[in-house]
Amino acid sequence: MSISIVGSVAFDTLESREGTREKILGGSATYAAIAASNYTAPSMIGVVGKDFPKNYFDILSNRGIDISDLEVKSGNTFHWTGSYLDNINSAQTINTEIGVLDNYHPLINGKNANAKILFLANNDPDVQMEAITKSKSPVIAMDTMNLWINIKKESLIYVINHSHFLFINDGELKMLSGEYNLIKGASWAFKTFKSLKYLILKKGEFGAAIFGRGADEYFTIGAYPLASVKDPTGAGDSFAGSFLGFISDKDFNWQILKEALFIGTITASFTVQEFGPDSLLSANKQDLDIRLSLLKKYSSL
Amino acid sequence: MSISIVGSVAFDTLESREGTREKILGGSATYAAIAASNYTAPSMIGVVGKDFPKNYFDILSNRGIDISDLEVKSGNTFHWTGSYLDNINSAQTINTEIGVLDNYHPLINGKNANAKILFLANNDPDVQMEAITKSKSPVIAMDTMNLWINIKKESLIYVINHSHFLFINDGELKMLSGEYNLIKGASWAFKTFKSLKYLILKKGEFGAAIFGRGADEYFTIGAYPLASVKDPTGAGDSFAGSFLGFISDKDFNWQILKEALFIGTITASFTVQEFGPDSLLSANKQDLDIRLSLLKKYSSL
Repeated sequence: MSISIVGSVAFDTLESREGTREKILGGSATYAAIAASNYTAPSMIGVVGKDFPKNYFDILSNRGIDISDLEVKSGNTFHWTGSYLDNINSAQTINTEIGVLDNYHPLINGKNANAKILFLANNDPDVQMEAITKSKSPVIAMDTMNLWINIKKESLIYVINHSHFLFINDGELKMLSGEYNLIKGASWAFKTFKSLKYLILKKGEFGAAIFGRGADEYFTIGAYPLASVKDPTGAGDSFAGSFLGFISDKDFNWQILKEALFIGTITASFTVQEFGPDSLLSANKQDLDIRLSLLKKYSSL
Repeated sequence: MSISIVGSVAFDTLESREGTREKILGGSATYAAIAASNYTAPSMIGVVGKDFPKNYFDILSNRGIDISDLEVKSGNTFHWTGSYLDNINSAQTINTEIGVLDNYHPLINGKNANAKILFLANNDPDVQMEAITKSKSPVIAMDTMNLWINIKKESLIYVINHSHFLFINDGELKMLSGEYNLIKGASWAFKTFKSLKYLILKKGEFGAAIFGRGADEYFTIGAYPLASVKDPTGAGDSFAGSFLGFISDKDFNWQILKEALFIGTITASFTVQEFGPDSLLSANKQDLDIRLSLLKKYSSL
């Protein structure tokens, strides 16, 4: 297995200025695995309820995603209701029905426990910790969100202390580090978390950056220019999933990591242009290649 | 004359989390002219009071800045007091003593009226309008700020309608266009202002972008990574001043404009790292070249 992805699988109910959607496919592991599947065959580890529709399983397995550790439990699938009416860049949680995510303990079977990369998509840091103890993957990558910095900081810090790649957005890095300057925030993270090799900073409409420990290991690009963002749900998950899927069968050298920042950025641009994962699902290799080459053009002297 | 710069010349009293300064050299024309003087010999058009110290005139003329249209009037130099305590990226005006800027009518003599570029640095749009009518420059560039969008929108729109280059930050573009999406905001600007050839978007710690009317005329870069920003006053002015100073004796082709975006970005990085224009003034050609080459490295695949 190249990459095992542990995270939430959900129904999302959403509203933005561009419309509303009820109980569509969502979840951090879902977006990350779909995005990764453009570059490798990932496994997706999580839990759904009996109400999870058969065609959603089909969507995932038809893309080559291994769902053997996607458990089905009696009860309802996690259901998140969020709004982007006030701010298209930041979700306001309206309601969460935790369902089968309550007291969830990830199952990671042999093949998935030995993946080259374990990606802990955004999730309760206690579940992320448990996944780390059950995995033998040599490389651990993780994502998180402001909620966990607020309510489970200690567990979160434990997880970051065991991770090699940290995906984080600008607001979260400021919050976690207590630094208002992002460059200082990144330095703080490398000083604080000894395991950390790379920090990938997601800046939404302002692009992304990667920081390493090496001299001059810093690289930054703008976002792919989109005149309409309908629903940013899953943007960060698809960014990280495609970034990691892309590098999972390669050497992690600086050149590959810079290329991966482009991959993450253009993949997320598909995610946000329509509600839910529809646009990400329908983007084919040619669509991805066109945006990749345009974004490189928009970023190259 | 390659470029004539009309704008404010001021005393600035400032506070940020990094300290305070009283009545130091400031003003939009000041920063823009100092920055431009790294690349050409600009003229600086404005007004100061009898209290403007002789050594400030010397600082300017020693850099090759033509100050023949920098008038000295009886009264006090414009004095701005601002605070960055709440937000390092956005100034809060504490006090303004308008002084000799009250009822100011720019003098633009023959040589300066025929400059290749007229740059209207941030200023009252009525003064900017008057400068346009007194100038014969074939190329007009302008900057503005949220204050003028709020209180003098009609005059401001007149000025933009006569400009070829618009420098604007992300918050101001959203405010002016009514669009929350910056790409849509830029499209709106090109539709609304027929004279406009290029829009340069300043995104502070998130870098900068340039939009043109041509197919694929879009280019974006990150900011120069600085672990400490002491005082962002003049960042936008130095960005625009150096950008325009750099292109003022060149053909305005897309390659030159992309290079100018790097020039503006690294120049502004010197401005913000210390209070006032000190760091901008002390940066020599080698300092500028080092940052230019690093930022290109941080932005190149």
